[in-house]
Amino acid sequence: MATLCKPSVSVPEHVITMEQTLDFAARVHAGKPQLPLALRLIQNTGVRKRHIVQPIEDTLGHPGLEERNRIYEAESKKRTPAVIQDALGNAGLTAADVDAIIYVSCTGFLMPSLTAWLINELGFRASTRQIPIAQLGCAAGAAAINRAHDFCRAYPDSNVLIVSCELCSLCYQPVDDNVGSLLSDGLFGDAVAAAVVRGSGGSGIRLERNASYLIPHTEDWISYAVRASGFHFQLDRRVPGTMEPLAPVLRELVTEHGWDVADLDYYIVHAGGPRILADLSKFLGVDSKMFRHSWATLTEYGNIASAVVFDALRRLIEEGVPLPGATGLIAGFGPGITAEMAVGTWTHEGTAFERDFVRSAERAAERAVA
Amino acid sequence: MATLCKPSVSVPEHVITMEQTLDFAARVHAGKPQLPLALRLIQNTGVRKRHIVQPIEDTLGHPGLEERNRIYEAESKKRTPAVIQDALGNAGLTAADVDAIIYVSCTGFLMPSLTAWLINELGFRASTRQIPIAQLGCAAGAAAINRAHDFCRAYPDSNVLIVSCELCSLCYQPVDDNVGSLLSDGLFGDAVAAAVVRGSGGSGIRLERNASYLIPHTEDWISYAVRASGFHFQLDRRVPGTMEPLAPVLRELVTEHGWDVADLDYYIVHAGGPRILADLSKFLGVDSKMFRHSWATLTEYGNIASAVVFDALRRLIEEGVPLPGATGLIAGFGPGITAEMAVGTWTHEGTAFERDFVRSAERAAERAVA
Repeated sequence: MATLCKPSVSVPEHVITMEQTLDFAARVHAGKPQLPLALRLIQNTGVRKRHIVQPIEDTLGHPGLEERNRIYEAESKKRTPAVIQDALGNAGLTAADVDAIIYVSCTGFLMPSLTAWLINELGFRASTRQIPIAQLGCAAGAAAINRAHDFCRAYPDSNVLIVSCELCSLCYQPVDDNVGSLLSDGLFGDAVAAAVVRGSGGSGIRLERNASYLIPHTEDWISYAVRASGFHFQLDRRVPGTMEPLAPVLRELVTEHGWDVADLDYYIVHAGGPRILADLSKFLGVDSKMFRHSWATLTEYGNIASAVVFDALRRLIEEGVPLPGATGLIAGFGPGITAEMAVGTWTHEGTAFERDFVRSAERAAERAVA
Repeated sequence: MATLCKPSVSVPEHVITMEQTLDFAARVHAGKPQLPLALRLIQNTGVRKRHIVQPIEDTLGHPGLEERNRIYEAESKKRTPAVIQDALGNAGLTAADVDAIIYVSCTGFLMPSLTAWLINELGFRASTRQIPIAQLGCAAGAAAINRAHDFCRAYPDSNVLIVSCELCSLCYQPVDDNVGSLLSDGLFGDAVAAAVVRGSGGSGIRLERNASYLIPHTEDWISYAVRASGFHFQLDRRVPGTMEPLAPVLRELVTEHGWDVADLDYYIVHAGGPRILADLSKFLGVDSKMFRHSWATLTEYGNIASAVVFDALRRLIEEGVPLPGATGLIAGFGPGITAEMAVGTWTHEGTAFERDFVRSAERAAERAVA
């Protein structure tokens, strides 16, 4: 039984507020006819602030792809070890207990993947499987949870570390000025996150079923143009409407599991933007408050790509650990358009004493029923 | 029981011979002091010819990263469907039977990954899992086999399609002229490959055990420098010597499985270069002829990165289908320095009649032993 333990999330020290974002956009793109619409869309995101790895002046420049990727490498090496140690601690494990590392990041490109450096520097075993994924964008967080779940199904005593490193500000492209690009400039933030999926033991979400879905013929709705200046994020204006076709897919997964999608105890969903969260409420028939952890991530950090689901889960747990047996849904959305989904039950390992207590209570209940 | 079925491999129509390679290198880098050594190293590769997606004149130019990546996208879409259909046919399956696609390629970058296009164009289910891996380089072929194996362990009735698309000629960098780069210019070739791992049924290698290994502190021995001109392949001169530390790791895996690494029936190994194959013979105590399929790939196609293991396996099967029960090793090597390894037994599904015959014979044997 694979259990997703409490994630660790870290955001950088440089902060840019909504007001600053609007101010910079208005100055940099002054006089352009698309500017008023873009400013309105940015205001509507509800993103109050974002955290970025460099001061805003450096972020708005473009030092070239080589230098950008060098910064990505330096910042990822600087920022991932702490969240990894913290996530291992949350899972009650050490680096030597980890059998596979799934590293997801779509905002920089290293070969070998950062996994090699992590194994060398942080004491992971030389036999640790490396599963680097760069091409699933914002869906990669939930995809990593699902692939970790699959790995633990295959090897029930194994442990998988997930690392999400999204330095979205390093993909800022000053020359891109269509409405989708201007909106993205005001939406994405930087964050690093890590979480462990334990094949046995641990407290957290016991992963019970997962699924993927590709909305047919939407490949070019979210994409990168790869140019000499790096990755250029391209966002189609139909993307915010994708929850209408995806909600039935989420409902089907939950229904197959014998649950009611409108009546779960928690929802850990990708905060792609405000319309995504609002439409999910509407089409799933779920009170918007149930998505408060995703809303909080969006408001305080912006869209932090594959790291959103880990931050939303962290917020859920810090608000109050769910009760054992609490049911929930995890969903990430990204290019493809791809949805990665999972359902699971809160499980609490407890101390040996607590486990004995629970087992005695279960036995007493069985006797009472029999 | 996961079974790796017969791969399909395709190489492009444009051919460059060893003589042409030496001639071009001598002309382009005339007078440089490192040229004589580089020409000797290229001659020593034993690569007689390579196949590339464009005529040599176009290959030697650099139209910029954006255009290169556009060519990558067009060529991958043109060339992968045929090998996929063929690989599905080899496995006795159709696209609708596939549960996951592992797409490995380190020679171009698309987001979304080509998996989205493949699902849309070739009739895969919308629920097909997408596992794109770009950062494991030449080790990615064996890594894909191992992750497919893991997936089928988790879901024994599932089928995983592996697609390897390596258009190495699109990473040619005219300005790179150190010895490692010049050698690489004469070593790498283009190919696309596909293979299916079936969770149940099928004829091929029954995957029984897999492992990964990272040689400590060798991250920068094989790497990409990411620049405005694209990926620049960087090869350390210590790489050809890596079989000395890796041979004991391969031996350990095989020994754990109860077999003798020097006495297997087949060896499907990455043909990184002639020294890799020669040293594997020496350190494993295996006759060089046992690596003839990898040698043939190297000689006729060059180092085709993650596609090598699929081509070597194709050659093994086309030479003569192994007998049921034949034991073997699969190994890929790439940046990290990472080794991905697997052991398996040849299994032949046969017709219903053949299966009954085998079962009767087994029962008779059991009775004879009892």
